[in-house]
Amino acid sequence: MEIKDFFPMWDELGERERKELSSAAARRSAPAGALIHGGGSDCTGLLLVESGRLRAYMLSGEGREITIYRLFEGDICLLSASCAISGLQIEVMVQAEADSEFLVIPAEVYRRAVASSAPLANYMNEIMANRFSEVMWLMEQVMWKSMDRRLAAFLLEEAAVEGSDELKLTHERIAAHLGTAREVVTRLLRYFQSEGMVRLGRGSVDISDRKALARLAE
Amino acid sequence: MEIKDFFPMWDELGERERKELSSAAARRSAPAGALIHGGGSDCTGLLLVESGRLRAYMLSGEGREITIYRLFEGDICLLSASCAISGLQIEVMVQAEADSEFLVIPAEVYRRAVASSAPLANYMNEIMANRFSEVMWLMEQVMWKSMDRRLAAFLLEEAAVEGSDELKLTHERIAAHLGTAREVVTRLLRYFQSEGMVRLGRGSVDISDRKALARLAE
Repeated sequence: MEIKDFFPMWDELGERERKELSSAAARRSAPAGALIHGGGSDCTGLLLVESGRLRAYMLSGEGREITIYRLFEGDICLLSASCAISGLQIEVMVQAEADSEFLVIPAEVYRRAVASSAPLANYMNEIMANRFSEVMWLMEQVMWKSMDRRLAAFLLEEAAVEGSDELKLTHERIAAHLGTAREVVTRLLRYFQSEGMVRLGRGSVDISDRKALARLAE
Repeated sequence: MEIKDFFPMWDELGERERKELSSAAARRSAPAGALIHGGGSDCTGLLLVESGRLRAYMLSGEGREITIYRLFEGDICLLSASCAISGLQIEVMVQAEADSEFLVIPAEVYRRAVASSAPLANYMNEIMANRFSEVMWLMEQVMWKSMDRRLAAFLLEEAAVEGSDELKLTHERIAAHLGTAREVVTRLLRYFQSEGMVRLGRGSVDISDRKALARLAE
């Protein structure tokens, strides 16, 4: 992918902005599991995902995690450039969830381009609105939905992302996605197994009854 | 307040945008308790708070509420214009918490102005980033903080907003702010009272030991 593929309004940018963004973008790669952005004090810049998968998550003082959203091919990670965005005080970590390639636009270059271009500022507004909406959706889930329903929805989402019903996932990873304790996940998965919805292996969860999981998730 | 007082970048706007925004802004008022914006399907527009206090909150399917943030004099409510913001799919209600006066800029007028002005788009980006940050902060509270600590912090915040330690608040109102059940609030307040931190009356909570509450909230 080229940098212009990430910006549908590329042709509306000025000559100067196009040049600055293109020449500043650096191609990087990260293996699955690597930390790419370490929170608010880290001034990583804008991440444009070319391949693989990134995961943005929150970390509690006690080391508990919860996945905020995931980024796929063609997505732009904005929170990793929070140092360049006035008013944004969000402590989010970004990790490669699969082997990933991405472009990095330094925060300062982004800040200059967005300050002078209305089309770019409006597009970044749209991306922020999307992420904001995802977080509000998650907030709803956390506030009003029980953990068994969230776990069922997560397993189905994971199967869609991986294109397989045989998920390589430890209970600990699942707990980190959902922001709960490993013991809670283990207890719920055993219950799902007793109901014939999943089969548990060592470091794996196989979905055996999609329909029942989907009914529970709703 | 005049409309330009809400936009620190007013002088950087074009002649056309200044004129359109000014002539479209309508002055409204709402008594304490009135619903101003009824969720995502409601296309209210941008709200500029001149006096009073607004409260943005989420509503569950079962009618439970949680306060997302509050808006004071000089604040701009963006989510009430979500119909004009691409990518924003957020179901938030806005209510007057005190007798309030505000300007309303119709969504379509806002959309046109922001599309053509980089300074305005960047300022709205900043406002959205602020609200996004507040929601992430709330998410952290909900995820990792126990309800007794959240209640203690809420009582102190409320005292600061009202400028008084004698709070006119029912247990039901407090529960709606915190997104929990009334019974939970009642149980915790009775515990606070037994520890000498508050005195409970009919529809009122008086703070009697600020320091103890602050220690608990931390």
